[in-house]
Amino acid sequence: MAEGSLQGRRVGLIGLGLMGRPMTDNLKAAGADMHVWTRDAAKRATAAAKGFTAAGTPRDLVRAVDTVIIMVADTPAVAAVLDGPDGVVAGLSDGVLVIDMGTTAPTATKEFAARVDAAGALWLDAPVSGGEVGAREASLTIMAGGSDAAFARAEPILRALGRNVTHMGGPGAGQVTKAANQVIVGLTIGAVAEAFTLAKHAGVDPATLREALLGGFAASRVLDLHGRRMVENAFTPGGKAATQRKDMAQALDLADSLGVEMPATALNKSLYDVLCDDRGEGDLDHAALIRVLDPDTAPNPDKTA
Amino acid sequence: MAEGSLQGRRVGLIGLGLMGRPMTDNLKAAGADMHVWTRDAAKRATAAAKGFTAAGTPRDLVRAVDTVIIMVADTPAVAAVLDGPDGVVAGLSDGVLVIDMGTTAPTATKEFAARVDAAGALWLDAPVSGGEVGAREASLTIMAGGSDAAFARAEPILRALGRNVTHMGGPGAGQVTKAANQVIVGLTIGAVAEAFTLAKHAGVDPATLREALLGGFAASRVLDLHGRRMVENAFTPGGKAATQRKDMAQALDLADSLGVEMPATALNKSLYDVLCDDRGEGDLDHAALIRVLDPDTAPNPDKTA
Repeated sequence: MAEGSLQGRRVGLIGLGLMGRPMTDNLKAAGADMHVWTRDAAKRATAAAKGFTAAGTPRDLVRAVDTVIIMVADTPAVAAVLDGPDGVVAGLSDGVLVIDMGTTAPTATKEFAARVDAAGALWLDAPVSGGEVGAREASLTIMAGGSDAAFARAEPILRALGRNVTHMGGPGAGQVTKAANQVIVGLTIGAVAEAFTLAKHAGVDPATLREALLGGFAASRVLDLHGRRMVENAFTPGGKAATQRKDMAQALDLADSLGVEMPATALNKSLYDVLCDDRGEGDLDHAALIRVLDPDTAPNPDKTA
Repeated sequence: MAEGSLQGRRVGLIGLGLMGRPMTDNLKAAGADMHVWTRDAAKRATAAAKGFTAAGTPRDLVRAVDTVIIMVADTPAVAAVLDGPDGVVAGLSDGVLVIDMGTTAPTATKEFAARVDAAGALWLDAPVSGGEVGAREASLTIMAGGSDAAFARAEPILRALGRNVTHMGGPGAGQVTKAANQVIVGLTIGAVAEAFTLAKHAGVDPATLREALLGGFAASRVLDLHGRRMVENAFTPGGKAATQRKDMAQALDLADSLGVEMPATALNKSLYDVLCDDRGEGDLDHAALIRVLDPDTAPNPDKTA
């Protein structure tokens, strides 16, 4: 990101969780006048002490800025900050830009976009891949859906937060892309988990296997990063299994709505159901899917990545 | 490979197919005295005209060399060159090295290794990943199983054929590794196929999707290479779907013999069954798996990679 590239921009960020906090810092570092709101009054006070302008409601936040970023946990949380007399939509005026950077259901996203559009404002869905590390290092992959005008207004902000920013199409196209991303990540984790379990039971060391396969056609970031987690039983998240399961469910809902069949995704989601529900381990990293296949993989609390 | 690194080695190669022919050339270029045998008498004559010593039988080939490489289509073909009065085993003497570089069933491999060992000779299973291009460019990934003595004798030969050579463990460990590799490749092809099908039906261009995701956690060589095939409907092989299906079946057989469950591999194999049997398209590239999910992907004969 270019220092000062956001001089003169007034940016509001809703949601000061693991992702939102470092993003706020990066936007401020790029020169934006940063305003924040979060549900938790204590976190609002902390943010104010750090020099951010803490708004009293989402509506008040929107009225003070030209762009509002929503970075909250899930689709109902997005609806909660948009809705009601104190919500984002109530505060919208002509030309304000709303960017949803969480992973939100693609079907709900089109409805949110239409409401923002009806208020004369601009909508962009811009979910990210890269996790907390990517948020901290401003190296996120960002997949954007919305009008050309919305993307053009958002682009300097997105480039202050990530390295690989792509305009995928109209409203919802960012969330469709994120769903496709999560499908590939979840299924590739499942692939590596089955391969490692087979190799281990056939007497081949998964650590040696990982090294050998990283040089060939089986190479992937999942084999590299999540394969290392599986070798070390390093299941402290990272990306939680429960979140991965939610993302797979959203992808399947989208597929259902389009009449598309995704048999491997449906199977993978059912394996995450076993991990999250039957085993109660949804708070482990999504690489812990291997524990469904090979229970002899007790989490090692000393290993975090 | 170092020029002349195989000076003084007499190497026999059985099987002059798409892989075997360029491997023979690379071994000769590295200085080996090359002997060959193949089932087809016309191909033997062609090889002799190119300056290789063509043996009359596998047994005669083995008696003329210190190392014999088997590079044939499948497990029955390996058994066929080992067995009988004219076979490899009949010609073995103390210290000869036998390297099986095809993708052979891991369970059968242990039996082959025991027969070679009983004849006082050395066994190495050393299957490869990288295809015909890798064979031509001597850039294969090679996964070896056998004793330390067998690997030490084989290593200069393997390094003349590939770039990423790993000794995985005892006899069979190379084939176990290849099975794990094929599991990951097949399941990742399936993952990319479902993600692209979902995106396309939701209005997102798979070509743009591929570019965007290659920068993030979903990145893999399969997304890069096979994803491009799916974007372009470039299904001229490459690696055939029928071969991928055979490899998945071998991995499942190995899993069965060990009591390991591989639900995603079993599902993926059933999708390849549909492609190969119901659609009769086993001769297409394995990336054509997407045609089971999205039949509106007619092969483009002008695109080969």
